[in-house]
Amino acid sequence: MIVRIIDLYVREQDQEAFKAASVANREGSILEPGVLRFDVLQVDTEPGRFVLFEVYRNEQAAADHKQTAHYQAWREAVEPMMAKPRVGTACTVVAPRDPEQWRS
Amino acid sequence: MIVRIIDLYVREQDQEAFKAASVANREGSILEPGVLRFDVLQVDTEPGRFVLFEVYRNEQAAADHKQTAHYQAWREAVEPMMAKPRVGTACTVVAPRDPEQWRS
Repeated sequence: MIVRIIDLYVREQDQEAFKAASVANREGSILEPGVLRFDVLQVDTEPGRFVLFEVYRNEQAAADHKQTAHYQAWREAVEPMMAKPRVGTACTVVAPRDPEQWRS
Repeated sequence: MIVRIIDLYVREQDQEAFKAASVANREGSILEPGVLRFDVLQVDTEPGRFVLFEVYRNEQAAADHKQTAHYQAWREAVEPMMAKPRVGTACTVVAPRDPEQWRS
């Protein structure tokens, strides 16, 4: 498995629209066979900051995700909402090692 | 649900010991009734940086976790391994909203 933690910084007036677009993206993403988790979070102390916690079976699954219509629609919708560039953090899983323990 | 993303910075010589201590902490933590997830990750571009992704049913569950023997043993074991102070990020869940979709 591979994990991508994406921090996104959203303009105040766009936060509700960003949530709606990201929930729609999640709904499509969790149906992809290579997507194990796709969690959408909002940081308590910094409400304009959101975190996407994405877990893929492998690198190919992460690449396939970027080709989907739901990802591309999300990307286009949220691009003008950004207050500053997103920060992506790629991680390796230490635990749990069983992919079934990651399923949403 | 509440999410705690904890970034920890571990001295190079302590990385394997940190992983072992954190896996042991996870094994105890996921048996707590209020713990929905407890994932241990290592950042690819910065191997001394680890992320604990912790999901609790509520604030009480997060407080209860800190009282457990496995948490206290972990905390004591890893304290001398730190290269710099940890950074905790408290998040609210946007999606999924069903606690059962968070179970490890």
